[in-house]
Amino acid sequence: MDLKQFIRDVPDFPQPGVLFRDITPLLKEPAAFQYAIDWFRDQLSGLGVEAVVGIESRGFIFAAPLAYQLAVPFIPVRKSGKLPAARMSVEYALEYGTSELDIHQDALSPGQNVAIVDDLIATGGTAIATTKLVELLGARVAALAFLVELAGLGGRERLKEYRVLSLIRYE
Amino acid sequence: MDLKQFIRDVPDFPQPGVLFRDITPLLKEPAAFQYAIDWFRDQLSGLGVEAVVGIESRGFIFAAPLAYQLAVPFIPVRKSGKLPAARMSVEYALEYGTSELDIHQDALSPGQNVAIVDDLIATGGTAIATTKLVELLGARVAALAFLVELAGLGGRERLKEYRVLSLIRYE
Repeated sequence: MDLKQFIRDVPDFPQPGVLFRDITPLLKEPAAFQYAIDWFRDQLSGLGVEAVVGIESRGFIFAAPLAYQLAVPFIPVRKSGKLPAARMSVEYALEYGTSELDIHQDALSPGQNVAIVDDLIATGGTAIATTKLVELLGARVAALAFLVELAGLGGRERLKEYRVLSLIRYE
Repeated sequence: MDLKQFIRDVPDFPQPGVLFRDITPLLKEPAAFQYAIDWFRDQLSGLGVEAVVGIESRGFIFAAPLAYQLAVPFIPVRKSGKLPAARMSVEYALEYGTSELDIHQDALSPGQNVAIVDDLIATGGTAIATTKLVELLGARVAALAFLVELAGLGGRERLKEYRVLSLIRYE
């Protein structure tokens, strides 16, 4: 299935000069969404994944069906201030300034084998922060899986010690 | 299944005097998460639902697996400034001030039969705003379904012209 037909290019969003890859047309097409979820499942099913970590908020859209399908825990990684119980935090750089991602301290167990799921990888900043959160809890990153990869922005190279999977790739 | 055992009470979050019902233990328990998703599916499967609208961001965790299961479109309703293409907006009241929810203008078709899904209903403010967005596009609300209902806060009464479903109820 040619999934790029379901990605809408929106110029100058969220700011001038940025070409935004909008996945909502894909979410609206059940056959395409099912194809994507089944791809995640097939890619990860041989890796002994014991938990799926979804990155807020579009990552939840793929991580949650995947956790359901694999019958493993769904673990949310959220922006600062959203998770209510005891948590670990990692700061990461944005274009201007920094932001923070949180995970609950009891979310993962030492040695647990984890897949990290998000809709898109660009520079890899949030993905790298999420690998740090997983490893702070003693768990292992079996793979990072993304619906869309913006290959020109170098996220894969910054994650080269990990298995990085993507379904739709733009140069 | 007694799902309340998987809801963690966190006092004074996000502010003093509020008892936060944390659903992350339920998300972490595959049998409980699957029970919840299957409950949504069973509740909605007789209603001719043609699209599932998920409210950012915890609503995505239930709406996405449900859309997958029902093989219907997944439609995100998001906070202001997140959706990139042409959109409709509705303002709603918070305890102090107002906030805004958006939907893409091409997300739904006139007459389409829609289920609105979120993790929790309290006063119903975001749920009511979402019914307005659905109806602005000419679609119909077949039901609103929530994992958790805080019944004492009156959301159901404010939505009394709609079918409101909830799996876990606190008085």
